[in-house]
Amino acid sequence: MGSERTSVGVGLVGLGTIGTGVVRVLTQNAAVIEQRLGVPLRVVRIADLDTETDRGVDLTGIRFDDDTAGLLEDPEVDIVIELVGGYDFALDLSLRAIGAGKHVVTANKALLALHGKQIFDAASRQGVDVAFEASVGGGIPILRSLREGFAANNVLSVHGILNGTTNYVLTEMEKTGEAFEVVLKRAQDLGYAEADPTFDVDGIDAAHKLTLLAAMAFGASLTFEQVPTEGIRGLTPVDFEAAEEFGYRIKLLGIAKARGENAERIEARVHPVLVLKTSLLANVDGAMNAVAVTGDAVGPTLSYGAGAGEMPTASAVVGDLIEIAREVVRGGHGRVAPLSYLPGELREKPLVPLEEIFGRAYLRLTVRDRPGVLGVIASTLGEHEVGIESVIQKGRGGATESVSVLMQTHSVRESDLRAALDSIDRMLDVTAPTRMIRIEEDL
Amino acid sequence: MGSERTSVGVGLVGLGTIGTGVVRVLTQNAAVIEQRLGVPLRVVRIADLDTETDRGVDLTGIRFDDDTAGLLEDPEVDIVIELVGGYDFALDLSLRAIGAGKHVVTANKALLALHGKQIFDAASRQGVDVAFEASVGGGIPILRSLREGFAANNVLSVHGILNGTTNYVLTEMEKTGEAFEVVLKRAQDLGYAEADPTFDVDGIDAAHKLTLLAAMAFGASLTFEQVPTEGIRGLTPVDFEAAEEFGYRIKLLGIAKARGENAERIEARVHPVLVLKTSLLANVDGAMNAVAVTGDAVGPTLSYGAGAGEMPTASAVVGDLIEIAREVVRGGHGRVAPLSYLPGELREKPLVPLEEIFGRAYLRLTVRDRPGVLGVIASTLGEHEVGIESVIQKGRGGATESVSVLMQTHSVRESDLRAALDSIDRMLDVTAPTRMIRIEEDL
Repeated sequence: MGSERTSVGVGLVGLGTIGTGVVRVLTQNAAVIEQRLGVPLRVVRIADLDTETDRGVDLTGIRFDDDTAGLLEDPEVDIVIELVGGYDFALDLSLRAIGAGKHVVTANKALLALHGKQIFDAASRQGVDVAFEASVGGGIPILRSLREGFAANNVLSVHGILNGTTNYVLTEMEKTGEAFEVVLKRAQDLGYAEADPTFDVDGIDAAHKLTLLAAMAFGASLTFEQVPTEGIRGLTPVDFEAAEEFGYRIKLLGIAKARGENAERIEARVHPVLVLKTSLLANVDGAMNAVAVTGDAVGPTLSYGAGAGEMPTASAVVGDLIEIAREVVRGGHGRVAPLSYLPGELREKPLVPLEEIFGRAYLRLTVRDRPGVLGVIASTLGEHEVGIESVIQKGRGGATESVSVLMQTHSVRESDLRAALDSIDRMLDVTAPTRMIRIEEDL
Repeated sequence: MGSERTSVGVGLVGLGTIGTGVVRVLTQNAAVIEQRLGVPLRVVRIADLDTETDRGVDLTGIRFDDDTAGLLEDPEVDIVIELVGGYDFALDLSLRAIGAGKHVVTANKALLALHGKQIFDAASRQGVDVAFEASVGGGIPILRSLREGFAANNVLSVHGILNGTTNYVLTEMEKTGEAFEVVLKRAQDLGYAEADPTFDVDGIDAAHKLTLLAAMAFGASLTFEQVPTEGIRGLTPVDFEAAEEFGYRIKLLGIAKARGENAERIEARVHPVLVLKTSLLANVDGAMNAVAVTGDAVGPTLSYGAGAGEMPTASAVVGDLIEIAREVVRGGHGRVAPLSYLPGELREKPLVPLEEIFGRAYLRLTVRDRPGVLGVIASTLGEHEVGIESVIQKGRGGATESVSVLMQTHSVRESDLRAALDSIDRMLDVTAPTRMIRIEEDL
């Protein structure tokens, strides 16, 4: 080992928000990076279709044009940063970079959740590294922790607040008592939510990230399509009031758990959850992210930080550059398997169907306020083995007006609960579909 | 790179609680470790003076005797785990292991806070690695995060709950309203505190850990003796009541901050602190640890987990074994500098004297309840530029009985506050020394 390298060359494809942040961090923190790495990290060239807009960073000495193909073949480029986003072009770009013998750093969870295996296999064959810390939890070094810090553990569970936009919306809804649409609109105006918020509010982004976390935690060869996903649309102010009264807060969590010896089966799902107010995850507010990992040796842990944004995401991208640059300098690669388990040890593991999962639940029923209605509902729940722990009725309606009835159930099998709700939602006095939110107590 | 290694050999010196945990993790989790590392980690031999006591772990196939010297020279041992604790023997042992060409893993923060430089220099000369994740924050991979996850950042501050015993005592005092001595006694009976609790309750253990964190965060060549340290003795139930009323909780924190460009000077100190109830650190309860790191790119982060205990500490030790084993297999070493900055980049950095630090403070005065006393005290504070934000008097005493007067000050220079308290504590109507607890608002 040892080498005559006097610098490591970086090529950046995509000079948007994150790309600009990467250039900013590499420029502003060049001194401290070299004090840790021993050689400078030098941005050799940048490719972007838009070469006109002023990004407010100094690009002196960097070749900046729209020639992506040239960048990928440039012999001065050791590491390619893919920050174009999306699927097809990003996949093609990453495979071409790998084919040209370049290491790749990406923040693209969608790409990896769908095409991770193809990319990792290509990198392994070619003898280059792929790093993607920025793809999950922004600046939080949670992937590193799963690969190395917790490497001695059988991971038992992962619970993550993985999407800053939805966490911001939930925090605001709780604080202001406003409706989902009102808060979403404000988040869009403030730039916290996209004009098309589907990826965030419907849980898709969180499911992409959970797919990667579950693969790394359990050695599961999992694809995004397998993960049952439910977003935060349909939550109403009354749900937040009820959560408060019951002692909970509402969070959109990605949850993955090992089931059986050696995680033979796994649970993986994204949906809103009631978490006890006193838990650390419940206190993660605004656009922040946090991932709770429980290992059989280490016990419960939590990693918290900014899940998005120019500089936090750039922090993770440049951290990856530094890690790969250490290998470039030493002439090595493939030190740690990208998904924590060696590629040959990844297994297809059956997912536990949602229906089989046991747990407590919160129910919001919308019913006509007539004598006997609650009795019929309680009987129906009882017939399906659903025990009721507590009930709150919000306001009084009368025979024609509907009221909200809020319940906490005892632990129940989800299929039983679903069957009970099917019956209940067909009753004449039940005027809107019942909202169910699972209660997570392992936190 | 690449090698014919079919296993990596481990020698363990010290089969106490943590050592037993290490054997347990290596045995129970052998499968998952090999699925990540590619080869088995094999405990070749163990040395301990006590070879009789049954530790409840399977030692089949492991040579177990009191021959430490033989272990250090054993050619089958690639990595030596030092778990003997203390200073002199541990130092001698570590240097002899390094001299014999062995990599070293230790959980000994006292050793590293005092003799780190000597050990790291010896390892560097010899071409072996020293790893010590378990020495700070138990199972929390915070040292790895400082070295790699946050490597792109200039670190701005570190705030840590670094000692589980004191955090347990503080949590219990708050919950029960009991006196320090009562809670400490119970903690000792439960095994949460040592018979001689000095290292924990006087903040020495936290200061050892902060010394390492500050070195890694700021590239500061710092020694433990430089860190002003104050423990939790002298906190009374009334302090917890007042903290609650003012909206805070009391935590013993290790605090290190960068001052000026490139952290020219640093703050480093261990003392009780009032932290806002709503902050995540305030919600770290019982024997758990947490470290908040703020970087100029990543922003605020928090890492939380068990700070001590057999299995969490073993999780960190075995994580270190796996990291070093990857190097053994590849025939490499020295991938990352142990203190994050390359050894030649560590600088002696002046500590900002406590007296120069500005901040708000909580004061508990013990005074005779006579007309005019408060006025004189307020005037004295005012003469020293100490502004009062709020005052609570607990109970009524009369001319002969003393009462507690609790204050929050505005931001004030510590030397001014000290001078004011010196004057106040000499007043006839002030019947006991005033207790001051700093309020930390950067959290």
